[in-house]
Amino acid sequence: MTRPAYVAVDWGTSSFRLWLIGEDDSILGERRSGEGMTSAAQTGFAQVLQSHLTALSAPDNLPVIVCGMAGARQGWVEAGYIDTPTSLAAILTGAVSVPGQARDVRILPGLAQRAKDVPDVMRGEETQLLGAIPADAKGEQIVCMPGTHSKWVRVVNGQVIGFSTFMTGELFDVITKHSILSHAVAGAAELPADSAAFETAIKAAFKKPSLATNLLFTARAGQLLHGLTAAGAQALISGTLIGAEIAGALSSAGQGATITLVASGRLQALYEDAFRTLSLTYTTVDADAAVRRGLSAAAKAIWPNNERTR
Amino acid sequence: MTRPAYVAVDWGTSSFRLWLIGEDDSILGERRSGEGMTSAAQTGFAQVLQSHLTALSAPDNLPVIVCGMAGARQGWVEAGYIDTPTSLAAILTGAVSVPGQARDVRILPGLAQRAKDVPDVMRGEETQLLGAIPADAKGEQIVCMPGTHSKWVRVVNGQVIGFSTFMTGELFDVITKHSILSHAVAGAAELPADSAAFETAIKAAFKKPSLATNLLFTARAGQLLHGLTAAGAQALISGTLIGAEIAGALSSAGQGATITLVASGRLQALYEDAFRTLSLTYTTVDADAAVRRGLSAAAKAIWPNNERTR
Repeated sequence: MTRPAYVAVDWGTSSFRLWLIGEDDSILGERRSGEGMTSAAQTGFAQVLQSHLTALSAPDNLPVIVCGMAGARQGWVEAGYIDTPTSLAAILTGAVSVPGQARDVRILPGLAQRAKDVPDVMRGEETQLLGAIPADAKGEQIVCMPGTHSKWVRVVNGQVIGFSTFMTGELFDVITKHSILSHAVAGAAELPADSAAFETAIKAAFKKPSLATNLLFTARAGQLLHGLTAAGAQALISGTLIGAEIAGALSSAGQGATITLVASGRLQALYEDAFRTLSLTYTTVDADAAVRRGLSAAAKAIWPNNERTR
Repeated sequence: MTRPAYVAVDWGTSSFRLWLIGEDDSILGERRSGEGMTSAAQTGFAQVLQSHLTALSAPDNLPVIVCGMAGARQGWVEAGYIDTPTSLAAILTGAVSVPGQARDVRILPGLAQRAKDVPDVMRGEETQLLGAIPADAKGEQIVCMPGTHSKWVRVVNGQVIGFSTFMTGELFDVITKHSILSHAVAGAAELPADSAAFETAIKAAFKKPSLATNLLFTARAGQLLHGLTAAGAQALISGTLIGAEIAGALSSAGQGATITLVASGRLQALYEDAFRTLSLTYTTVDADAAVRRGLSAAAKAIWPNNERTR
């Protein structure tokens, strides 16, 4: 039987995911819960981590590599930021040790773009990026990591040149919950329930992103004047926000840049539909696999001895 | 003493404003309250109106002209819409009588743009527009009526060609209250507290409106990386939304079109600052005066006899 080599943890704001990884890189066990940073800051990070390790009967001396919001100022131990431009490998060198733990626990840093006019930060996505892009990649790559705060990263010859966060997911959430458009979407099933409306909105917002906040209101007017359905309104809002995001993100991309989508599940389906609708060529990398690969690269760099025990 | 000729009411979603107008067009009395459509739909529209008329000792036979959400489906009596393109004067002919009232009460219709790709509606702003633009105006005029839902109207030779609603005010509200940016603006005073940050954001969003939802996130990143203040973050969010709105609204305006801003108070100051920052020429019409003039034009068209009693 394969012996466990290390534990990989993706610790987000509202989610916790842990994998027990074997010496042959196989996944020996997996845990998922809602004990993200917000919840763990109350109950204790060490306690949350140990409860999941105990559930998987992980040996006491097994090291743990962590990425995400556990390294934020309001997280477990602040892991700081690596500044752009930077090589992807640099994040491996910035891991901080969590003091006072029986086992070796390291948290990976985030990335910061300190330009005064477009400051930006990420925590967790840098590890996905590390797992999504080959270290020896050549040319310009545009990496799209959709989510509550979608991250678009420009990588040239393996260097992270810069990145941009678009508040797409969170805006969809607050608009459909708290604005007048909440009435227009009331009762709609989960996205994407109306692909035709989604694709029409993607095209309209991509073509004229300056009209995004106007197009959003057509969900209300369409309901009043043309009996637009809740599913149609929801797809229109989602398509408008995503279409404007793609237009903005690609506005500074060079010709010939390739697009890599790092996503899974519902978001993967939505963004693939958007890229197809806009006739944009893209490659998809599964987001879960990417973060595991990134954590694995970090673990191997930090604990090379675990490698040799194979 | 001047005798009262009619009563003018601007009945919005969350606000009620009433003026007692004399035969010589002077304002004999004024009432303002929060008894907008939402509240009046509960307590009764007739009751709310009568309480304010009683407070001003308005004669029992005095006619009342109303604009705004009192004419919505969920309002007092549905007043329908006049479809664009239309002359401004056409809204005068679309007033509906409220049945079962001791006095003559008329509600003005809204405007509807039924184009399938950009449906839009307004209620109340059409009356402001009537009071803001001379009936014999020549050439192209772009009228900006900022608010919860900003309305931009294109008028050519006195004809309303089309209009666009931008959700600027409501987006500012839900973003600063319900998104992660609520932390960045916590404790900020009322806008505009940081003009420099506001003007920088206006320029950035006007230049690249496709990056609007990215620029919004710089309020968060700027706080983390550069100690951006709450007033600065608030001004950045407001400037981003207004800058993108102006870019979108003017994207289809013809060269040589004149901009008329119909606003008062805080919104007037913000939009004048934005127009100046972008070196755009504009004329301001006071929003209160505009809606009164529009209601007055309607009253004189509907009850010409009141005119003759002067």
